[in-house]
Amino acid sequence: MYWGFAFDDARCDSGPLSTRPAQFNVLAGQVQRACETDSADPGDRYARALQDIVRRFRSFAAPAQVARFQHAHRTWLSGVAWQIANQAMGRMPGLDEFLTMRLQAAGGHPTYALLELATGAQVPDRELYRPAVRALSEMAMMVAALDNDRHSLHKELARGHTDQNVYTVLMAERGIGLQQAVVEAARLRDRILLRFLRLHDRVRPTAGQELAVYLQGLRYGLRGNNEWGMRVPRYLSQGHWPDSMEDLALAYAEEPTDTRPGPVPGAPGIAWWWDQDLA
Amino acid sequence: MYWGFAFDDARCDSGPLSTRPAQFNVLAGQVQRACETDSADPGDRYARALQDIVRRFRSFAAPAQVARFQHAHRTWLSGVAWQIANQAMGRMPGLDEFLTMRLQAAGGHPTYALLELATGAQVPDRELYRPAVRALSEMAMMVAALDNDRHSLHKELARGHTDQNVYTVLMAERGIGLQQAVVEAARLRDRILLRFLRLHDRVRPTAGQELAVYLQGLRYGLRGNNEWGMRVPRYLSQGHWPDSMEDLALAYAEEPTDTRPGPVPGAPGIAWWWDQDLA
Repeated sequence: MYWGFAFDDARCDSGPLSTRPAQFNVLAGQVQRACETDSADPGDRYARALQDIVRRFRSFAAPAQVARFQHAHRTWLSGVAWQIANQAMGRMPGLDEFLTMRLQAAGGHPTYALLELATGAQVPDRELYRPAVRALSEMAMMVAALDNDRHSLHKELARGHTDQNVYTVLMAERGIGLQQAVVEAARLRDRILLRFLRLHDRVRPTAGQELAVYLQGLRYGLRGNNEWGMRVPRYLSQGHWPDSMEDLALAYAEEPTDTRPGPVPGAPGIAWWWDQDLA
Repeated sequence: MYWGFAFDDARCDSGPLSTRPAQFNVLAGQVQRACETDSADPGDRYARALQDIVRRFRSFAAPAQVARFQHAHRTWLSGVAWQIANQAMGRMPGLDEFLTMRLQAAGGHPTYALLELATGAQVPDRELYRPAVRALSEMAMMVAALDNDRHSLHKELARGHTDQNVYTVLMAERGIGLQQAVVEAARLRDRILLRFLRLHDRVRPTAGQELAVYLQGLRYGLRGNNEWGMRVPRYLSQGHWPDSMEDLALAYAEEPTDTRPGPVPGAPGIAWWWDQDLA
């Protein structure tokens, strides 16, 4: 994948922390324009690669699908800008703010915007922007983002990273230790996934053919993200996929760790996912 | 209007310049979430006002039109983030970068996203995202932004502002004085407006009824922005609408100051507006 690596690892790690938000904002502006405009001169090889990717999208997809990817790309950059700003200010967000920020910064928006481009299913906008469908999209992104936090936990601990992730946020907000934070984060994630599954089963029968393809894509994405996260070197402290004898190996649980219905307390920014009348 | 005032004037003027991009990014993240999510707790009266406005949109408009406003709002915040970053770094952008940044930072996206909400015309996404229609939208926003730079010039000069506007950018990039920059900025603006008018006349006959309403809205917006800019106290150095005896009064020109066709040199980020095969 193009994204993530470029910003996280390569381009914003130099210079004092306090100047990074400004540097990032300028870079993000230029990258986003390259994403949106073929005539732009991004003057940066990463942005040029993105421009090339979007040119290919344009060659086979309808303008609305390309525009959705572009909006999603901007959303992701906004999330990263927020994350970097918190870093620069030495600011540990509360759970509510973290979830909203991470929802965007994790890159789920552009990833899932690829669904329409990959499948060719053009979801009518009256279906895609239905509140229930938007909630399903956001929940799928949130679960994937929390799974990514889990996948990278060992590596981050090994490297002494103390930046914002669901564990450091829960530890700070609730005054708990890492073990307990891992338990609570799994509960949080399981509650969201359960709500996703239930709402999905209610929405799916009402979906047109293209929306059905999209919803199935959200589901594949959840599983695929986990398969990827358990193998990809960037998340593995030992740089390889742990075999079953290593205690770093993650496994799927048999049952959800929290089956309580209703919104997660203390997270109003995502509480609407549980609205009973979502349609 | 809600926007502009809040960020420009009230909320980012305290603290050292270097910390503003980080502060702004966090604020923008929270404001945008309030724009997108009714359950969010923005903890900020401006964001709460925005949340109330969008709640009203939701009460009478279709989800796709509300989503378009939300995307547009994010685009605007990204542009302001870019502008603030340049300020913090004491960085005067070149013309190409400035035009892209200003296109977003001036607030044209959310303003014009109000067209569908105000008129009730729901433009099908296959029409709204046509490259020619996107070019028309961007050109209308750019002309309005450049007109705003003109309207606020006297006030900015009177206050000793030297921040990025089309005049300071042209002066720095071309080594020219203010008088010449005013002439060149008018030429630039007139070339874009002429291209807008010509492309509009080609697109209009192909437009469905809703798109026709939208395109007419872009045109009204250009004129309306000028009427507003010539009267609104924020742009007037004397705090009132100048009468015809005052030399600060702006007037409409009889003729465009530059009728050359083809893209503005040195501005690849907007050069695609002049593509001959825009459809």
